[in-house]
Amino acid sequence: MTKVKCTISYDGTNFSGFQIQPNKRTIQYEIEAALQRMHKKQHIRIQSSGRTDKGVHAKRQVIHFETTLAIDPANWKKALNVLLPSDIVIHRVEIVPETFHARYDAIEKEYRYFVLNTGEPDVFQRNYSYFDPFHIDIKKMQLACKRFEGTHDFTSFCSAKATIKGSKVRTLYEVSCQKHENTIEFIFRGNGFLYHMVRIIVSVLLDVGKSKITLEEIDTMFILKNREYVGMTIPPEGLYLWNVVYEDEREQ
Amino acid sequence: MTKVKCTISYDGTNFSGFQIQPNKRTIQYEIEAALQRMHKKQHIRIQSSGRTDKGVHAKRQVIHFETTLAIDPANWKKALNVLLPSDIVIHRVEIVPETFHARYDAIEKEYRYFVLNTGEPDVFQRNYSYFDPFHIDIKKMQLACKRFEGTHDFTSFCSAKATIKGSKVRTLYEVSCQKHENTIEFIFRGNGFLYHMVRIIVSVLLDVGKSKITLEEIDTMFILKNREYVGMTIPPEGLYLWNVVYEDEREQ
Repeated sequence: MTKVKCTISYDGTNFSGFQIQPNKRTIQYEIEAALQRMHKKQHIRIQSSGRTDKGVHAKRQVIHFETTLAIDPANWKKALNVLLPSDIVIHRVEIVPETFHARYDAIEKEYRYFVLNTGEPDVFQRNYSYFDPFHIDIKKMQLACKRFEGTHDFTSFCSAKATIKGSKVRTLYEVSCQKHENTIEFIFRGNGFLYHMVRIIVSVLLDVGKSKITLEEIDTMFILKNREYVGMTIPPEGLYLWNVVYEDEREQ
Repeated sequence: MTKVKCTISYDGTNFSGFQIQPNKRTIQYEIEAALQRMHKKQHIRIQSSGRTDKGVHAKRQVIHFETTLAIDPANWKKALNVLLPSDIVIHRVEIVPETFHARYDAIEKEYRYFVLNTGEPDVFQRNYSYFDPFHIDIKKMQLACKRFEGTHDFTSFCSAKATIKGSKVRTLYEVSCQKHENTIEFIFRGNGFLYHMVRIIVSVLLDVGKSKITLEEIDTMFILKNREYVGMTIPPEGLYLWNVVYEDEREQ
């Protein structure tokens, strides 16, 4: 058996998320269907660095699978790109050691969230950023970003539906935001993210930028460890899984 | 009766073009359906500055219609944006003199065409630019652009299916191209455009950029007045109707 690692991107607009679900178009379904065609109808299960929700995009996502086929990386890439629909693209294929795991070996993930902050909606951005026409103070948000950096228990900032039983302590290496022309870009880099965590934190940051909540209230939210005291979950269309880092890539 | 002018944009991806066709989703159909809901089921016919093809986008398109409703421009804009699907946006509504006509009064139109010129396709650009990974010489194309500026008979550069009977002489005020990062942007401004004219000229320009044809061959193509001697029609996804100018706006 050979283990194959693929670095992929996808436009989440027309998918019901990453994970296979009955009668839904998902990224996992499309990739496994392409692999099945290459393996004489044998089903090949893929593993990803983590799921993404309906409407969420991936600029760089990583998957792996095992195969008995002896194909070199360049030809894997070509074959899969021919078989896959146009909203999934394979950027890189590597043959990796048998011990590699796309999820367990990831040491850092990066997400970005884009907000179109101008008076008029842009029809070409409607699936690729969240439209918010109100005045947003970037400097205030930049101060608030710092409150999320470091190691914290993020219980208040993940979906109450989160199924994980373990610790909700995560470390964020970077939380930042900047405005370029009409677009606010939020960057999150960390060792792991809980369900809806980025979308909930972006909501809180925007509320700070609109002076609806204060920096001190963020501290209180952390202390309360209760999702109910924190605002809404912002829609998925502005969210991108931007990068996944593995041990041997840290120097890059 | 009141005449209403609307400046609109649309993402052409999921439309079969502008013009109404049986059993197809078109921009004209969606706007007329929204107007019909506002006019107690009475059908309101719209006129545009010109049709766009399947997959072609509009950054700024202009339409007009006549109505018996007394609604101010701000409320027209709000009502139509609520009733229209998310891939059409109304940017501006004006009450105009009875003599105004979106097509006949247009004195200048601008189209832009975007080519993603890099080694890897970008999944987020697949419906919004044409992907061409080959080496393209921008300077050569910039020289070729000049051959198209001015007043010419564009018979060789319009679809052989073009139904117009009249003159195929048009004046182009600007034909230019520039590369910003990985994207080549072509700009065309003129007093009128024939069917497929921009998409055919962009194909020719790219062939010049790839040294497949020479500047002198462009001169020959003009002289031959025959579509058959000119290359393919480039796909629609990179094309945008960018602006339509009317007499009273020239100073803007």
